[in-house]
Amino acid sequence: MTKIVQCVPNISEGRDLKKIEYIVNPLKNQEGFKLISAEPDYDYNRTVITLIGDPEKMIVPLINFFQRALEKIDMRTHKGEHPRMGAVDVTPFIPISNITIDECVEYAKSLADHISFMYQIPVFLYAKAATDPSRINLPDIRKGEFEGMKEKIKDPSWKPDYGKPMIHETFGVTAIGARIPLIAYNIDLGTADEKVASAIAKAIRASSGGFQHIQAGPASLQEKGFVQVTMNILDYKKNPIYRILETVKMEAKRYHVEITHSEVVGLIPKEALLDSIKYYQTVLGIPYDKNMSLDQIVKDAIEYLKLRDFDSFKIIEANL
Amino acid sequence: MTKIVQCVPNISEGRDLKKIEYIVNPLKNQEGFKLISAEPDYDYNRTVITLIGDPEKMIVPLINFFQRALEKIDMRTHKGEHPRMGAVDVTPFIPISNITIDECVEYAKSLADHISFMYQIPVFLYAKAATDPSRINLPDIRKGEFEGMKEKIKDPSWKPDYGKPMIHETFGVTAIGARIPLIAYNIDLGTADEKVASAIAKAIRASSGGFQHIQAGPASLQEKGFVQVTMNILDYKKNPIYRILETVKMEAKRYHVEITHSEVVGLIPKEALLDSIKYYQTVLGIPYDKNMSLDQIVKDAIEYLKLRDFDSFKIIEANL
Repeated sequence: MTKIVQCVPNISEGRDLKKIEYIVNPLKNQEGFKLISAEPDYDYNRTVITLIGDPEKMIVPLINFFQRALEKIDMRTHKGEHPRMGAVDVTPFIPISNITIDECVEYAKSLADHISFMYQIPVFLYAKAATDPSRINLPDIRKGEFEGMKEKIKDPSWKPDYGKPMIHETFGVTAIGARIPLIAYNIDLGTADEKVASAIAKAIRASSGGFQHIQAGPASLQEKGFVQVTMNILDYKKNPIYRILETVKMEAKRYHVEITHSEVVGLIPKEALLDSIKYYQTVLGIPYDKNMSLDQIVKDAIEYLKLRDFDSFKIIEANL
Repeated sequence: MTKIVQCVPNISEGRDLKKIEYIVNPLKNQEGFKLISAEPDYDYNRTVITLIGDPEKMIVPLINFFQRALEKIDMRTHKGEHPRMGAVDVTPFIPISNITIDECVEYAKSLADHISFMYQIPVFLYAKAATDPSRINLPDIRKGEFEGMKEKIKDPSWKPDYGKPMIHETFGVTAIGARIPLIAYNIDLGTADEKVASAIAKAIRASSGGFQHIQAGPASLQEKGFVQVTMNILDYKKNPIYRILETVKMEAKRYHVEITHSEVVGLIPKEALLDSIKYYQTVLGIPYDKNMSLDQIVKDAIEYLKLRDFDSFKIIEANL
């Protein structure tokens, strides 16, 4: 059976749609995998690209994609709300079916080897591909961002796994790795006060004593005029979405702030939505049907989680 | 200035009030420290004793108290809802003022040395007094409980810190240590179904992915006819009470179960109550006064946290 992975490169360009189109082009209409989406975010100035399919077939197109990001993105002039350290900031391989996480690590290393050799881009292996515990968490690697990396990379403890210990002048550095599926989930607050988003993020994230599998921070969406609590849910079985959303609601109350919407960036497993739909339907006394259609899941998830910009193609299972 | 600690021995007897009175007697009316409370719990079959004062003056009375617990409690016939491994199950020293945690460790060692020498009781040092990371958490030491300890203690990795590697036949073993103040906090659920308490405990506790500083489990109070989520809040600044209570409420909703009351076992710092009062008053738009009297704190805490069996003497600051 064919190996299926999800691969989610993030590039540091979310504003110039022509540039994004050009960079992403090598990933389009390829045999063996599908380009599911390219989601630019103006405020983040970042685009999340999602591929699903055979990793074997992805490597060469990904190398071409890196080459185009290198050509078009100059990190020296990049500004955006999301932390970043390179033109392609991060590329995770995520096992979906007929493939182990260890095999995903091998694909990550293969891509890392080629792009560091061909384009002199220093690569840090991260998550399950990490060569040291200090490199498991992407935020630890990325700390200091593009601007700080010039010095940081000279520190022997931050020697890149591939390439020389000096940043690529315009590209910066990149992280490539393998990880289990996470959910990139953001909650929109009915305020423009970033202090509120900061305080709520602090209350729920693992690094300050909150839920064990939550990374969270504030983001100020200037264009949209409100702030978000922006999160990675690293284990949605142990920290289900509804629990995070309800805890954020509870904390927001002390600032008299409403939750206006929430959003999933990239893909989400069906099961993660069903878990939360089950919670709300059980609370409301509505019969829960675990075999509901994808369309019904989308409808219910939008209703209960106040999801915006959501459709069935954001569910992993709709793309297999 | 006088060193002040809180010392909270727990004994495995919560039903026979005469026995408890006899065991606790050496701690009464002593110079240099106060016996704040002895709180027996029938279902737990356990009594939590709270002392406040000069640790120097506590050691000899504590030795006499251990001697009486040894005399009156036979662990071979003890049954109760709370996990336990000895007649005196655990004795923490907690710094309150003019004393460091390291000095508390020294008092813990002194008590351990004496009672193991005089009564052949094996002692595990725990929390900040632990001699190995595997002994920091009391539940790790206590795993297997009195019944399993007979074999466990023979394992070289569970050799006691004081005394021989064999349990005292009737007393069992004990843990003595030093730790920062924790809050023993229980939430009463309007159901007798222990599965509900288990599921909620699992959702919130660190060991299964919940809040980082929460230990939690289910307890079935046969006598009272309901179940509890029983907790230790190890860091009330990072995991404030209101956040735990509201998360438990939210989880309880899916079982259509009400929170009927909550309770503090032992003492609680004033600040921990103020933090939660502030949350509820801010949500409700009621002006919050951080200088409110202890009586007002008690009144508000009972109202917002639904505390039962609570009065100002449960607040540490009322006892100084």
